Amino acid sequence: VALPEAEAERLLDAWPVARLATVAPDGRPHLVPIVFVRHAGALWSPVDGKPKTGGPLARLVNVAAEPRVALLLDHYDADWRRLWWIRVDGRAALGGGDAAVEAALRAKYPQYRETPLYAGAPALLRIVAERVRSWSAGPRGASGGLPSDLP
Amino acid sequence: VALPEAEAERLLDAWPVARLATVAPDGRPHLVPIVFVRHAGALWSPVDGKPKTGGPLARLVNVAAEPRVALLLDHYDADWRRLWWIRVDGRAALGGGDAAVEAALRAKYPQYRETPLYAGAPALLRIVAERVRSWSAGPRGASGGLPSDLP
Repeated sequence: VALPEAEAERLLDAWPVARLATVAPDGRPHLVPIVFVRHAGALWSPVDGKPKTGGPLARLVNVAAEPRVALLLDHYDADWRRLWWIRVDGRAALGGGDAAVEAALRAKYPQYRETPLYAGAPALLRIVAERVRSWSAGPRGASGGLPSDLP
Repeated sequence: VALPEAEAERLLDAWPVARLATVAPDGRPHLVPIVFVRHAGALWSPVDGKPKTGGPLARLVNVAAEPRVALLLDHYDADWRRLWWIRVDGRAALGGGDAAVEAALRAKYPQYRETPLYAGAPALLRIVAERVRSWSAGPRGASGGLPSDLP
């Protein structure tokens, strides 16, 4: 069953992590965890100062050629009645810095007091949803309302 | 930095959840959380009895046309020094039941005492790794060795 609309909205605002799937120029899928913030009708993810493995980031190379992406927010729990996911199918584009987005990221992630918001030049991936689907293992009411505490 | 080899091996054996990215026939990426078990040199994921949203599962339709998939195991933590991920790029194929894989799934997931191992006819997605990469935010030794407790 789908998550209640209000709950999906709350999770899109508050959930701290998502997994981003892109498609490489050779047709392979690519997958990476990201942090993000919802702002002004889009989801924004910075190319931040967490250590990187070097070289141009695959997600950016991929999005430049194929903007269609999928983003998954989900919760795993040993109690399978508490499983849920939200999948955003959308289009991504890379842009430069944006003061309002940066403020929203800093408000959502106190970690940016220590970790640089950008690895180099300001760079934000902007994802605009074309379709949002959700699933939960059972009626949320039965398990007490809102999904488990944020990780 | 990459995770130490032994730690990546342990996580591939024990971590309970992964996110599977496939590519749809129209070229879009698709993304879903899965449970899986490592057995006989492959990763196996059942089409199990957790409630489904109906219709043919996109992951199966996609894999039939494009076997290349990406699988991500990762840990999110508010302490960003504890972040890590393991990405498996490989090829997937759908097959029928397999007694040894079923036993391994039941050993890894006590949840299958209550949830049916299969939604209908026995069906297992078999993923053979072609490349495994890992990343962690810092030297694992500094944060005390093994990643945080399993979810």
